[in-house]
Amino acid sequence: MASLPTESRQWQLARHPATYPKLEGSDATFEIAKVPLPALNEGEALLRTIFISNDPAARVWITGEKAKPREYVPPVKIGDKMRARSLSRVIGSKARKLPVGTVVLASGGWAEYFTAREDECIAIPQDSGYDLPHYLGTLGVTGLTAYYGLVEIVEAARDDVVVVSGAAGATGSTAVQVAKKIIGCKKVIGIAGTDDKCRFVEGLGADVCLNYKSPTFYEDLSRATEDLADIFFDNVGGDILDFMFTRLRQGGRIALCGSVSRYNNLSEKASFANFDNVITQRLKINGFVVLDYLHKLPTVIQIFQEAAKEGKIRVDDDSQTLVPAKFEEIPGVWLRLFEGRNQGKLVTKLLV
Amino acid sequence: MASLPTESRQWQLARHPATYPKLEGSDATFEIAKVPLPALNEGEALLRTIFISNDPAARVWITGEKAKPREYVPPVKIGDKMRARSLSRVIGSKARKLPVGTVVLASGGWAEYFTAREDECIAIPQDSGYDLPHYLGTLGVTGLTAYYGLVEIVEAARDDVVVVSGAAGATGSTAVQVAKKIIGCKKVIGIAGTDDKCRFVEGLGADVCLNYKSPTFYEDLSRATEDLADIFFDNVGGDILDFMFTRLRQGGRIALCGSVSRYNNLSEKASFANFDNVITQRLKINGFVVLDYLHKLPTVIQIFQEAAKEGKIRVDDDSQTLVPAKFEEIPGVWLRLFEGRNQGKLVTKLLV
Repeated sequence: MASLPTESRQWQLARHPATYPKLEGSDATFEIAKVPLPALNEGEALLRTIFISNDPAARVWITGEKAKPREYVPPVKIGDKMRARSLSRVIGSKARKLPVGTVVLASGGWAEYFTAREDECIAIPQDSGYDLPHYLGTLGVTGLTAYYGLVEIVEAARDDVVVVSGAAGATGSTAVQVAKKIIGCKKVIGIAGTDDKCRFVEGLGADVCLNYKSPTFYEDLSRATEDLADIFFDNVGGDILDFMFTRLRQGGRIALCGSVSRYNNLSEKASFANFDNVITQRLKINGFVVLDYLHKLPTVIQIFQEAAKEGKIRVDDDSQTLVPAKFEEIPGVWLRLFEGRNQGKLVTKLLV
Repeated sequence: MASLPTESRQWQLARHPATYPKLEGSDATFEIAKVPLPALNEGEALLRTIFISNDPAARVWITGEKAKPREYVPPVKIGDKMRARSLSRVIGSKARKLPVGTVVLASGGWAEYFTAREDECIAIPQDSGYDLPHYLGTLGVTGLTAYYGLVEIVEAARDDVVVVSGAAGATGSTAVQVAKKIIGCKKVIGIAGTDDKCRFVEGLGADVCLNYKSPTFYEDLSRATEDLADIFFDNVGGDILDFMFTRLRQGGRIALCGSVSRYNNLSEKASFANFDNVITQRLKINGFVVLDYLHKLPTVIQIFQEAAKEGKIRVDDDSQTLVPAKFEEIPGVWLRLFEGRNQGKLVTKLLV
């Protein structure tokens, strides 16, 4: 057995980006640092990163403090390791529940190696028949977000007409399948950014998926929601959310999951022409954060594995975008999220 | 008995105001017309207006159509009688339940006389010991709005810290009393527009009331909500709503009752610097319209009469602003709503 590493490279936050994060130059957002790995205490393991989850919300964490209460997750400060969920393999262990070789889901961040306590790790089955990275996507926190957003936050039911934005993305593509195939909603309308993505979303079960870059998008969406929708599952915010205030029936429900259209311009105000409809149409807007439901992850993995067996949920190569990347390329892969370059969950496969 | 009138003067919408309604000149918003009163059919009554309710929402009804679904109440069209709830006295009747002399709550509008079917009228007790105009305010739809907004829409409970905007206004002043005296909420914070109004609101039971025109308002509100609030009952919208997105604890609830700060500028977008907090703080925004609860009016009148007897709710001269006015002055009295000139419910007493 080779000797264990005693230090690790990690990507740290170099400065808060004002708008779009920069990969290079004197004002680069991130920087590489080499840090020593602490000796393991009882109950701890040493882990090697194998797959990294790429999440739009991470853009919010690096924005810098604002003068308002933040009880979400603490911001990533300058000099901190960049935070991310990842799958990693135990290569050294003083934790009974984490023998060497175990693969775990943990918040390993953008690092080659890290240490963690066993209560910070969720062991992942390696014999399930599903490729590991799906445990960062449909069979992981992404699936949890889509499932609990629809089932608990807006209580979607069979009678409901559901609109999903960011429908080709990780959460959106899962939400489409949960709505149509697991809950059995009457009609599911996706919104995505290219015609190819729209066909992908329709392949997942959406009755129709509309390209928001089309010049006829708003007419198309009005037609698709001719009888008005019951639920809007929103990952995008901005103008699409604003328009949807006009396309929900009385008492319509909005699951506010994300606001990716704004993440690179958080200092700009969110402006809505139709916010008054929230009153006149008696809308219910529910912000939610999946962290509140992490204890339900094992349950949702079970539900999704069953659904996948029955062909209701796709857990395959097309339902994720897996990008092999060297350590140096980690930030660039993450930025693809904001370039509309992923279909399904965007996962970095860290090359050694 | 004098012969019954066969025609009535009424205020009609002359044109949609772009911003602030105009009382006079060639672009006046309203105009007086004389209309014949139809002969009574079986089940109908002829009514003489005695008190008119003044409501901010009426500003929305005269805005003109926008390209969005409106299922609230139909807009008032050009040439239509201006809509308003009023108390009126039956002066002619072919309705068994409405003998001459009965006082009713109905949607009589800005008219001296009108006819209505008996199912459009709610008879008001004349021997309750309360002055009649209170049945347009605390003992009427205003009270219903405050009560059901807090009790049903955001399920306020004793443990909750509640912030109420427009707290010296009709709905706000009642909401403050419902929260503090009927529900018994832990802390009630009012927001109003003058120091005098703030003292009035504190007299109603608010733990503190803050003047939003004070240069230290936002600091004051931050201090008053140091431990963050659970509920925001909002009548105002705009910058105060925006700031409150930062002053609610995780899972905080907003009852979106009105948006009076915007009613004269509805074509401007609603802009929020802190809308992202709806996600990060898992806020629940609930738009509501009291019309959905009109069937509960008798119940709430009962609750409020009981509460008034126990000294929990003020139903007196100070809890309303009663303005005697000639027919010609009706629009001008209504506009006081937008000038911050009323305390409690603003009621027009129509002089004959």
